[in-house]
Amino acid sequence: MDEFMRAAIDEARAGYAEGGIPIGSVIVHAGRIIGRGHNRRVQNGSPILHGEMDAFENAGRQPASVYREATLYTTLSPCAMCSGAILLYGIPRVIVGENRSFMGEEALLRSRGVELTVLDDPECIELMARLMREQPALWNEDIGE
Amino acid sequence: MDEFMRAAIDEARAGYAEGGIPIGSVIVHAGRIIGRGHNRRVQNGSPILHGEMDAFENAGRQPASVYREATLYTTLSPCAMCSGAILLYGIPRVIVGENRSFMGEEALLRSRGVELTVLDDPECIELMARLMREQPALWNEDIGE
Repeated sequence: MDEFMRAAIDEARAGYAEGGIPIGSVIVHAGRIIGRGHNRRVQNGSPILHGEMDAFENAGRQPASVYREATLYTTLSPCAMCSGAILLYGIPRVIVGENRSFMGEEALLRSRGVELTVLDDPECIELMARLMREQPALWNEDIGE
Repeated sequence: MDEFMRAAIDEARAGYAEGGIPIGSVIVHAGRIIGRGHNRRVQNGSPILHGEMDAFENAGRQPASVYREATLYTTLSPCAMCSGAILLYGIPRVIVGENRSFMGEEALLRSRGVELTVLDDPECIELMARLMREQPALWNEDIGE
């Protein structure tokens, strides 16, 4: 497996080990991870720290030129909020672990020119399947349902 | 002026007084402010804490039923990220101070059924005009340019 999706899955697993929702993300620029994170709804009581948002936050303030050459990896199809952050900063490429558990705003991203690759990765699918089985109410909260 | 837009402007002014970008937001449910905030790019070194995102974060974890009866007030037209958060949580009504300084994803929000009102408020316009005059590079960074 690609080392960067491996890092995103490691983030997801770390989140699950903390009692949280197992979704992780890394942002890569020039072959190097500049930001990594995982969903922190449970850990921080946060409605905005989805995995992708946590990765953006941990990358800190970056110039537009960096975002525009970056690739975002996420274990799950990005929701409207995270897709919006991707559009705001003009991230050109997004690698998605899977979209069976949740279909995010992939059509919107593609319509705005973002290059999206969906891996349909069994490990990402299993992480979400377990969470949705164990804590369905928590998962619904995370996607505003 | 509406008390809630007043509160959003007060947040924007507080952000400016801290050396930050003067954009504020409040989220109102059942006639009461449940979350308020302002842009914290400078103060926290945060690329994700736009005013609206800070208001969501400060509202904490809310059930879907609350979001779906809430109104979000923001001094400036919401960018793709903040619009995405509005869509994720199904906020049905958004009151925007102005959209002359920056046109956010108003068309997308309306296409998804969000009721949007733009006040074209002179105080909101002046706050942004001053910031864009004083710190154009900071403003460009905030919108990914």
